Amino acid sequence: MQPSGIVTLTTDFGSSDSYVGIMKGVILGVNRAAQMVDITHEIRPQNIQQTAYMVQTFYRFFPQGTVHVIVVDPGVGSERQAIALQTPEATFVAPDNGVLTYAYREALARWGAEQVRVHALTEPRFWLPDVSRTFHGRDVFAPVAAHLSRGVGVEQLGPQLAGLHEAQLDEPSVDWRGALVGQIIHVDHFGNYITNICPQHIAQSGLGQKFAIEILDERITKICDTYAEGEVGVLIALFGSSGRLELSVRNGSAAHLLGVGVGDNVKVWPA
Amino acid sequence: MQPSGIVTLTTDFGSSDSYVGIMKGVILGVNRAAQMVDITHEIRPQNIQQTAYMVQTFYRFFPQGTVHVIVVDPGVGSERQAIALQTPEATFVAPDNGVLTYAYREALARWGAEQVRVHALTEPRFWLPDVSRTFHGRDVFAPVAAHLSRGVGVEQLGPQLAGLHEAQLDEPSVDWRGALVGQIIHVDHFGNYITNICPQHIAQSGLGQKFAIEILDERITKICDTYAEGEVGVLIALFGSSGRLELSVRNGSAAHLLGVGVGDNVKVWPA
Amino acid sequence: MQPSGIVTLTTDFGSSDSYVGIMKGVILGVNRAAQMVDITHEIRPQNIQQTAYMVQTFYRFFPQGTVHVIVVDPGVGSERQAIALQTPEATFVAPDNGVLTYAYREALARWGAEQVRVHALTEPRFWLPDVSRTFHGRDVFAPVAAHLSRGVGVEQLGPQLAGLHEAQLDEPSVDWRGALVGQIIHVDHFGNYITNICPQHIAQSGLGQKFAIEILDERITKICDTYAEGEVGVLIALFGSSGRLELSVRNGSAAHLLGVGVGDNVKVWPA
Repeated sequence: MQPSGIVTLTTDFGSSDSYVGIMKGVILGVNRAAQMVDITHEIRPQNIQQTAYMVQTFYRFFPQGTVHVIVVDPGVGSERQAIALQTPEATFVAPDNGVLTYAYREALARWGAEQVRVHALTEPRFWLPDVSRTFHGRDVFAPVAAHLSRGVGVEQLGPQLAGLHEAQLDEPSVDWRGALVGQIIHVDHFGNYITNICPQHIAQSGLGQKFAIEILDERITKICDTYAEGEVGVLIALFGSSGRLELSVRNGSAAHLLGVGVGDNVKVWPA
Repeated sequence: MQPSGIVTLTTDFGSSDSYVGIMKGVILGVNRAAQMVDITHEIRPQNIQQTAYMVQTFYRFFPQGTVHVIVVDPGVGSERQAIALQTPEATFVAPDNGVLTYAYREALARWGAEQVRVHALTEPRFWLPDVSRTFHGRDVFAPVAAHLSRGVGVEQLGPQLAGLHEAQLDEPSVDWRGALVGQIIHVDHFGNYITNICPQHIAQSGLGQKFAIEILDERITKICDTYAEGEVGVLIALFGSSGRLELSVRNGSAAHLLGVGVGDNVKVWPA
Repeated sequence: MQPSGIVTLTTDFGSSDSYVGIMKGVILGVNRAAQMVDITHEIRPQNIQQTAYMVQTFYRFFPQGTVHVIVVDPGVGSERQAIALQTPEATFVAPDNGVLTYAYREALARWGAEQVRVHALTEPRFWLPDVSRTFHGRDVFAPVAAHLSRGVGVEQLGPQLAGLHEAQLDEPSVDWRGALVGQIIHVDHFGNYITNICPQHIAQSGLGQKFAIEILDERITKICDTYAEGEVGVLIALFGSSGRLELSVRNGSAAHLLGVGVGDNVKVWPA
């Protein structure tokens, strides 16, 4: 795969330190022509599920051959491996702690196992000369990503692995009363709740075309097409830009209205 | 107009989601050489007046031929149009909801109506193939901006319009007692109050060279040249870097001192 | 020194205004090919010590010939000078108020006084045509940095100075009871305390190989190698990625646990 020269960065480093800037300096030291794009550095510290969701939202909008660096790494310095995941679309560089779970599953479903490769990052010649025990983003992930963005092959980075570590992520399921029960997996900047419920979950659950969505004591019986369709201040449901069921308030914040958060349940009932 | 290849981004998307990163991926998919500059993504959600002010502050500092994308869009998915505004300096891509009001008025005053063109964005070949109802930043504004940055002419994007939607923005006026009454239109990161009062408002109001500025029960009788001129902790007035009357506290925060905010009045009296 | 074409930006401007974007527009107007990297814009307003520390953390990770712009400038518009500091590694552009103290001392120690040059920025032909009294980041520092990134020599910017203004920064010292007393100089996004204590301070203080670290009524007797070595929720000490003594809580926040902050004492006792 021809590299695009683009490197994206997703971390839980925040914006008040120099950690992200340092990673960019290291990348430019290896590939002066790299084009770097920040996705977000506001992942909640060390939150694997939120990271796995976030990765899934953006990678398919980048040109083929882009390198995506993900550094959310509670186990830095421990025995967890550092890996690269390569698909026919993109290469991901991350700790092997589950942050690539959704991206990996999507790649397997789309391309099949033969075209999806996972390699351990074990070749020190692609790292900084001195590797600290506390900042692998700087010492391992940034330089490896920069080498990939210049055309180094993923097979040069270390031995191929049989797969990667998949995190136990919340998935919707049907309860004994016939309701599809999903969870809030992200609250966005506007206070929209994003759930793990996709149209295929509703289709597979046999709920049919008519259903009602329940959260706390709120009940929504209609799926809107746009945020602007709701009345101001009223909770609505729609399938958002990521293809997931979202709960939203026009010109307001669902999170302010309801006060629940990540991990809380959303149910879909037959109408 | 020769494109500069630069695309700026101003939104209310915040920094904790992947929305901005996704727009950048789409832009790079159309124009791999685009140079993207974030202005701010911290516009208060869906605040048209603040956006209109913000746009006015920065565009003239960019090279000629820069494309400015503004996505503050409470009506996404409704009937509001998407537009491009082209002047001899720059091209703006935005929803037609008033966010370009100041930039448009400045362009008309400077260049005349013949050199200022507004086009509706109606040609789907410059959009992503699938346009959602909820994320036109990704599906329409980003790809259109990228095409403009590569040299696509604004006339190719859709039909020319007679003008654009101008928002009802607060403007200073003279009250029955002879005071010029303006409003706070932005509170910056340092807690400085930026008002909608410019030197020409004071000149036109006949206040002369000597005047006093009043906010709550504070009265300021001198316009400083610099922030450093004031005593520490004392409220001062000056014409700031955007040419507007600002209220400021040296080594402190006017917003913390006074506690008022956007929309509140500032009066200028004859001294 | 050949310029790398990279310009980094470190300010206290925050992310809710257009100030940083405006500086980037000015830089691109002078050097369309400049590659700009944000370090942080979340320096606490006008905090010289935090800035001096922050600058020290990142510059050595950038390619030789990078220009680093630092705008934390409580005295803008007053008599403080604007300067450029050039070493064989990098060029720094900043107000002469102490923000370059650590970088300057490191350069002198590493390269010697002959290879470290400080110039006043007095040549208006490298500034914007109109210089305001309130925004030298836009009018002086940004265009000067852009000219440097294109290859303008530092000696063209203005006369050479004998040195720069060094701030009075907290330094560790040994108290009458034999303890090495240092201070917290930064609290990072994860709530880690970063102190001004480096391995050489401990070596020079004669504490030997066995020592204990004290903060409030907490006592730590072991230096860990990694964050993951500690038990969840327990305070640990380690030498972090910047080479300084840090206090940290695994999967938690030292700042939340202890509640102290910048300027507070950390002691190292013989064990």
